Parts: sequence; C-alpha cells; structure tokens
Amino acid sequence: MSENYNYQLTVDKVLEYGERVYPDREIVYRDKRRYTFESFGRKVRNLAGGLQRLGVKPGDKVGVIDWDTDVYLMSYYAIPMMGAMLHTVNVRYPPELIVKTILHAEDKWLIVRDEFLPLIEKAGNYLNNVKIIAYSDENKVKYPDVMELINNDDNQFQQQEISENTPATIFYTSGTTGEPKGVWFTHRDLILHAMSCSIAAAKPPISATPEDVYLILVPLFHVHQWGYPYLFMLGGNKYVLPGRYDPTIELNLMKNEGVTFSAMVPTILYMILSHPDAPKYSEVFKNWRVLIGGAALPKGLADTARKFGITVMAGYGLSETAPVLTISYYNSKVEKLPDEKKFEQQIKTGVPIPLVELRVVDPEFKDVPHDGNTIGEIVVRAPWLTREYYKDPEKTKRLWSGGWLHTGDLAVVDEYGYIRIVDRDKDAIKSGGEFIPSLLLEDVISSHPKIGQVAVVGMPDEKWGERPVAFIVLKDKMTEEELKNYLMQKAEEGKIRKWWIPDKFVFLSDLPKTSTNKIDKKSLRDIIKAK
Amino acid sequence: MSENYNYQLTVDKVLEYGERVYPDREIVYRDKRRYTFESFGRKVRNLAGGLQRLGVKPGDKVGVIDWDTDVYLMSYYAIPMMGAMLHTVNVRYPPELIVKTILHAEDKWLIVRDEFLPLIEKAGNYLNNVKIIAYSDENKVKYPDVMELINNDDNQFQQQEISENTPATIFYTSGTTGEPKGVWFTHRDLILHAMSCSIAAAKPPISATPEDVYLILVPLFHVHQWGYPYLFMLGGNKYVLPGRYDPTIELNLMKNEGVTFSAMVPTILYMILSHPDAPKYSEVFKNWRVLIGGAALPKGLADTARKFGITVMAGYGLSETAPVLTISYYNSKVEKLPDEKKFEQQIKTGVPIPLVELRVVDPEFKDVPHDGNTIGEIVVRAPWLTREYYKDPEKTKRLWSGGWLHTGDLAVVDEYGYIRIVDRDKDAIKSGGEFIPSLLLEDVISSHPKIGQVAVVGMPDEKWGERPVAFIVLKDKMTEEELKNYLMQKAEEGKIRKWWIPDKFVFLSDLPKTSTNKIDKKSLRDIIKAK
Repeated sequence: MSENYNYQLTVDKVLEYGERVYPDREIVYRDKRRYTFESFGRKVRNLAGGLQRLGVKPGDKVGVIDWDTDVYLMSYYAIPMMGAMLHTVNVRYPPELIVKTILHAEDKWLIVRDEFLPLIEKAGNYLNNVKIIAYSDENKVKYPDVMELINNDDNQFQQQEISENTPATIFYTSGTTGEPKGVWFTHRDLILHAMSCSIAAAKPPISATPEDVYLILVPLFHVHQWGYPYLFMLGGNKYVLPGRYDPTIELNLMKNEGVTFSAMVPTILYMILSHPDAPKYSEVFKNWRVLIGGAALPKGLADTARKFGITVMAGYGLSETAPVLTISYYNSKVEKLPDEKKFEQQIKTGVPIPLVELRVVDPEFKDVPHDGNTIGEIVVRAPWLTREYYKDPEKTKRLWSGGWLHTGDLAVVDEYGYIRIVDRDKDAIKSGGEFIPSLLLEDVISSHPKIGQVAVVGMPDEKWGERPVAFIVLKDKMTEEELKNYLMQKAEEGKIRKWWIPDKFVFLSDLPKTSTNKIDKKSLRDIIKAK
Repeated sequence: MSENYNYQLTVDKVLEYGERVYPDREIVYRDKRRYTFESFGRKVRNLAGGLQRLGVKPGDKVGVIDWDTDVYLMSYYAIPMMGAMLHTVNVRYPPELIVKTILHAEDKWLIVRDEFLPLIEKAGNYLNNVKIIAYSDENKVKYPDVMELINNDDNQFQQQEISENTPATIFYTSGTTGEPKGVWFTHRDLILHAMSCSIAAAKPPISATPEDVYLILVPLFHVHQWGYPYLFMLGGNKYVLPGRYDPTIELNLMKNEGVTFSAMVPTILYMILSHPDAPKYSEVFKNWRVLIGGAALPKGLADTARKFGITVMAGYGLSETAPVLTISYYNSKVEKLPDEKKFEQQIKTGVPIPLVELRVVDPEFKDVPHDGNTIGEIVVRAPWLTREYYKDPEKTKRLWSGGWLHTGDLAVVDEYGYIRIVDRDKDAIKSGGEFIPSLLLEDVISSHPKIGQVAVVGMPDEKWGERPVAFIVLKDKMTEEELKNYLMQKAEEGKIRKWWIPDKFVFLSDLPKTSTNKIDKKSLRDIIKAK
C-alpha cells in the first residue's frame, strides 16, 4: 500500500505557511503585546494544547467574547485546529440576544475578556452548562486564565489530522429584521475564501504586497473579519490589532506602526475622517488604501477620502458568503479608462473574485442586460458559502432555492460588467408599483458638499404604498429648500427621477447604528412609525 | 431538502472567471490566430461539444501531439471539462517511446497536429485502437478536423457537473534513467496549484499584475507548462503562444506583443541571449521578468541576464508535484536585504509557495540546520501531488515512503530559509565516500566570463569510486590551464573544495539536451563510458 498523504485544506496549513516564509513579521496588539509570526504560532499551539488539557474536545463549540485582540486572533487558529468550532459572539448585540445565540449554538465553552464577564455572569442559570475561561490585559482572573495557557510552552498540543470538511466557525447574522440566524463554515471554506481574496487583493488598485501593514477595522466577531485573520498570514503582512475601536488610538497606531491598508464599513471611515485630529495625519493618509464593504460606499464619503489622498475601493458580500463575493478591482475594460472613470468604478460593488459565479437575475431567472439600469437580484455560487441556516431548514430552503444562494440584494450591472447594489431587498422602497433604489438616491444626496451622512427609508403612504424619507446628518448648515433644489437639479441632469425626491427630510445629529456599525434602517423606520 | 450547491473545483470555473472579468483580454498564437478570452471560451466549448459528438466519453484518455498552439491550450480546458483526461504527449521523445506512452496510458483518442501525423501513421497496427483527430494551420486534413470542431458554433456542449476528484491530466516523466513513469492529476490538484502559484507570483520580485503579458517557453507537453494554462486565466494576462520554439520568432513576438514575463529552463534563456539579434532587443529585455526552473539557474547565466536588464528568479518542482513547490520570491528576511544580496537569493531555489510543506531531511528524517552547508533530501506534502506512478505500485511505494513525497533531490537551507538544490540524487557524484555537489561546482565554473555552458558528471574511478568530469561550451577561447587556475583561486576563496576540481575537462560546441531541453547528463555519462 502506498502511503500517499491525503492533504486536507485546514487552517493550521495557513499558520505554518506564515511561520515558514515570514518568521520575523510582526503582529501588534495596541501598545500592549507584540509577536513575530514565529512566536505567535508557538502561542497558538500553547493555547490549543492548554484548551485540550482543560478538556475541550473535537466538535465542541467555543464562544469568544472579546474586542479585536491578540487572544481573539489566536482563537481563529487554535480552536479550529483542535477540530473544535469557533463561535464568534457578536458583542454588540443586546445582552439577552448574546445569551440566546450562545444557547442556540450550544457553546460548551466561552473565552471571555474581563470586561464582558459581568454580562455573562448576569445570565446566571441560563449559562450553567457553559464553562468559562477568561483573561485580562492587566489582572488575574478568577477563571482558568487564557494568558497562562498562551504563555505556557509546556502545553504540548496533540495535533490530530482532521478533515477539511470539519466545521470550523459559526456566528449569527441579524439582518435588519427578525431573529439572528446561525451560519457555519468548514476549514475548506475558510482556506479557499482566503486564497481567492488573496488573488484579487494583489490586483490593482489594492495591489497588496507582503510589505503592506494591515489595520483591519472590521470586528473579529463580524463574518471572519472579512477573511483577514487568514489573509494576512498568506500575504505575509504585518498585522495591527486595535482592541476596542477608538479613532484616536487608531490614528496613532496607523502612524506609529506604518499602516498602509485597512478595511471597514463606511461609518468607521466617516468617523476617522471627521475626527478633529484627522488633518494632522495627512502623511499617513497618502499611503493608505481602504477597502469599504458591509454597506454601499457613498460617493460623498469617497470624494472626501480622495481629497485626503486615500485610495478607496469597495467590496461586497454577506454573512452567508464568508463574506467576500466581489471587490472593485480593475477588470480588462476598466483598467484602460482614465483615472476619473476608474475612480467611479472603484466605488461600485465591483467584479467577482476568483471562483465566484455571480448572476444578477430578473424574476424569470434570466440575466439582466449590462445597461446600468435594469434591476435584478444577485444570486451566487462559490466554494465557501454557508450550507444552511443552523437548525432552520425553512429559511435554508429559501436561501438556496433553485441551487443558487439568494442574496436578497438588488443590483444593476453596468457596461463594464461592474455590479452596483441599488437596494437590499428588505430595504427596498416600493412607490406606485415601482422601486425607488434607496442606495442610488442616498448617493446623490451625499454628493452635496454640506451633507455628512444620509439614509433613505420607506414611509407607508395611502396613495403610493410607500414614499421615501431622508434622514440626514449635516456637515454645514443648509435648509430643506436648498437640498430640494439641489435634487431637482440632479433630476434634470438625469441622475435620479423626479418622483424619487423624498417627501420628508429629517435632520439628526447622528444616525442610529447596528451592532456591526452599519446605519440601522430598522430604527429609522421605527422613528417614522412613532411619529 | 435544501438545494445548496456543492461547488466542485473544476477547470471550467477558471475559464469562466477569465471570461467574466477579462472578456476582451487577448490570446495570440504567433501571427496566425488571435482570440479574446470571451471568444476563446466559446471555442473551447465548441471543441468540447464537437468531441462529444465524435464520441469522446467521460473517462476517455485523449492524447495531444502538438507544439505550443491555440489548439493545445483549448485542449487544456475542453478535454478535462468533459470528464475526459488530457494526455500531454512528450513530442521530444523518440517515436518508439511516444507510442509506448500512448499505449501505456491507454489513450482512446489522439489530437494530432499535421506535422506529427507521419510519426503516428508509421506506428501502424500498434495504434489500431486509437482514433485520430487532426488539424493543420493551413490545409485540410484527412481525419476529423479539429479546426472544424472549434469553429462550429452549433457544437452545443452538454456540460455535466463532475467531481473535483475526477482525473484531468496524465503525462510521462523520464527522469534521466529508466522507463518513463506516468503521473496523473485531478481537477482539484490543478486548481489549487494554480491558486497557490498565483499568490506567490504576485509577490516581489515577480510582482505579476493583470497587465503583464506572458510568453511561456515551457512546452505545453511538459508538466502542465508549470501551471500557466490556468494561471494566466486567473491572473487575467494576455497570453502569447509561440508554436514550435524558434528564438527569432520568440524575440519578434516579445517585441510585437509587448511581452513582460516568461518562464523557461536555463537552456532556453541561454539560447535567446546568445542569439545574434539579442542586443537589438535591449528595450524589450528591460521590462522582462523571467522565471527559471526545470534545472538550477547557473550564476553565470543569471549575471548575463542581469546585464541585459532582465529580472531573473528561480523556481523548483518535479513532474510528480504538478510541478511548482518553491519560487524565489522574497520572504520577510530577504526583503530587507540590499539589492545585491537579494539577487543572490533570487537565483536560489527559493521558498515554498502557499500550502507546500517542504522539509530538507537527513537520513534519520530530521530537518537539517539552516547553515547553508548540511545536505539533506527534499521531501514534500502539498494538496496537488501525484498519488502514484500509473500502474507502478512498486515505484509509488518508494515515492511516498513514510507519507512524504521523496523528490530525490539533495539540498541545503541557508540562514534566510532559502533552499538550494546541490544535486539531483541520481546525478550525485560520490568521491572518497563524500558527495561532490555537481550543481554548486557547475555554478562556480559558469561564473567565469568565458564559459557558456557547463555540466559536471561523475566518472568511475578505481581509487575514489567516482571523480568529476566537466563538459564545457566556451563563449571565448580559453585553455584548460586558465580554467584550472581560476578554480584553484575559487577553492582558496572557500567557494569550493580543492578536491572537487574536475580531473578532466571536455570542450564541446554544444551540450546534449533531454526532451524537455535540460542538459542530458545521461548522454554525457555515455560519452565517458564510450571513451
């Protein structure tokens, strides 16, 4: 019998690659702790060995409740490497929902950062069957201490070969309505997702190289932090972890650690660029490329970023899709365009990354024409999509109807083949039997220099079914009249239709956010209902 | 039941990616035929549909006998997409061996370029059970015509979903001794190999981008042309096919098509740079990056290339390994070195590409120290290695002994972690019980400016077991005395040991080549025996 090795695509292979080729590359957690890839790898194995000794078994689900720290990043490797499953608990959920997802996932263990211990302890009997492991950056904890496991080089990790089809991660996605739904992914999903993202990220305009320094401002609890915990290891990139988000600390880290690349939702970029110290960091911004996802990139924000010298581009994906489906890298048509046109394409949703089959289809499931106008639903296939909503066959059936994953997002395809989301299905405004694409409308409103942020939602209307309402945060004083005139002008220019212009403008000092820092349209609808 | 789509890693996915994101990118076959990725994809499906209509079935082996043409490139997709198996027949083998490999592989079909038809027809009865399909660039052929299949847009291809574990390719590797051995690879092997190569190729100093234009001078019959038939589609690169190799045509294509990147064995680079017209192409060379593999890159040749302004780097792999295992891209240690030191590392064998586990082990299977001195054998694991030698369980067992693929290559690892092949196991010279690393010795000899090419082999010796003989092609006149003095000086500098200096120097006008254009050491040993 031949002893040929049946290689499995498991996350330990990515870690080993990083240790082998980039042994002295750094991982930095604020000003607290620093590692090389080599010492990081050793500590990951210490953690895995320590968890084994505590009794964590293959198949166990281990929840992690933490900000973006070194400990969390280690968990992304250590827990799946044991054949256990990492549950990235959404710490931005209300406490009750956090407990609910832990119970729904059937977590056996929780790794908890000290400041979240009260939250867990308050849950009392509900979490009686969950064993707690904890840590603090400064103090001792009264639970088995993660830091002791990590720093104990005697924690021999007994690594077993596991199948690439072993479940590796699980987390919950709320959408804007309804109960959170669980999605889970295998080792193979994570590796193929990271490899495909790596190929796309190396292409212009991201043009990632191993000398890039990453500060990813997508929480580690949020959809695998868009894949970066594995991507940076394949890329050989220095990795800066910011802990709990704080624009002042982020700006400092960017300068001190030489950050050249980040990924985030639009709101976070807005917060950084609105920070009073932002103008002082112009040198840092000049070398900064930023990938925006999680929500559409408003034109106004992209323009502001560009004035700072920042290169921005967009990406798109869902919790259900690991998440990345498209990035706005240059295809063969856009690569030839002048810079101004390239920029316009860069802030669209982009083109599929390798191995993603993406279609925008009409109700008859036919592909819409590439006319930038005809709206269809995005349906996808890729080798890393969730197989199901955990314990929810009904919703799973709808998700995968016809053998394609239904994103519920409405989009158009332009003449260059770039996809542009015009609305999330659930956010769509239907007025007089026709759709008003709220994202397109927001884009045009945001292009006025006095507008900071904007969100458009539907308001019930007896005559039209729904009519749009715009919620606005101003940068500079302006009247409703002034804005309406601006939009009328845009309608005359053909950018929007006249009947899309909102009937109502609500000026706020800030917009409500979801747990993942996207604008919370559900809350805005509640404001309307309450009125 | 959920209808979630069970995505398989099959080669059609790579083609679809290229068509989707780079629809107007070109594929060029000499000055004969041009395609866009879009029209190429359509013709691939025409070919697959046509072959189906002729009766090619899933599981059938289809041999291709051709130079590097558009038809061959289409076969790399069309045949595996049908669930059939592409046999890339080595046209440089002696006719008898060609027939032998066709029979051993049990090919049911042969796609033959007209100039190879006499060879096949001469085999007569031996190939009675093989059905022939043929084509010519200019004329009609008396067999079913490949060009007609390709150009018939009515050839509806009935694509079936196939498993990623379906065998996709088979070919034969001769090594320098013994009968050719068959190795085969699945769709999954090809995709993972191409993805990992893509990630490594995007890193410096290759720094491949979609705007690079590829002219690959590795034959399509040779180990998947190092993966480029799939790599260029993932990369979105314009692809130039040279047909039968001819340095004059190659230089012209480079200039006219704007070639920026090539891959080849050292001999081919030597032939191009020795071409009388080479100095006229200095502008082309300045933008040219060249990946050298298949044999060690001699320092002398690398220096010559550098003087032309060419960026050279090395790679390493075997027929058994799909082939790529290492490329000399910069790891975190080398990236910080000054240019001169970087160059030295670039021409070594390099570091593993993602997902390759590579060890250099001593006879006790312990990793050798990173001292640049201790010689060990390279053993590997990766997700794309051959499972077996086709129909040869005995050799398979040796290949995979202990669960690692044994390359039979001897190497050292330097302080930066770069691997350097010092000898092929079968080429090793053992003198007085100690190894003389022939590749190291060749390197030092080739560094003399008057030396064109050099090969060192072992000659039986009563006293020492073996002693080295150097076969040399001179660029400029020089005496044996002059060369010996040069080597004595190198021995004093500590570059080689004194007792490595060959006892005999044989000056030739050219060195014999193998079917894949590597220097044929077996023939050189025969010359010695005959004396």
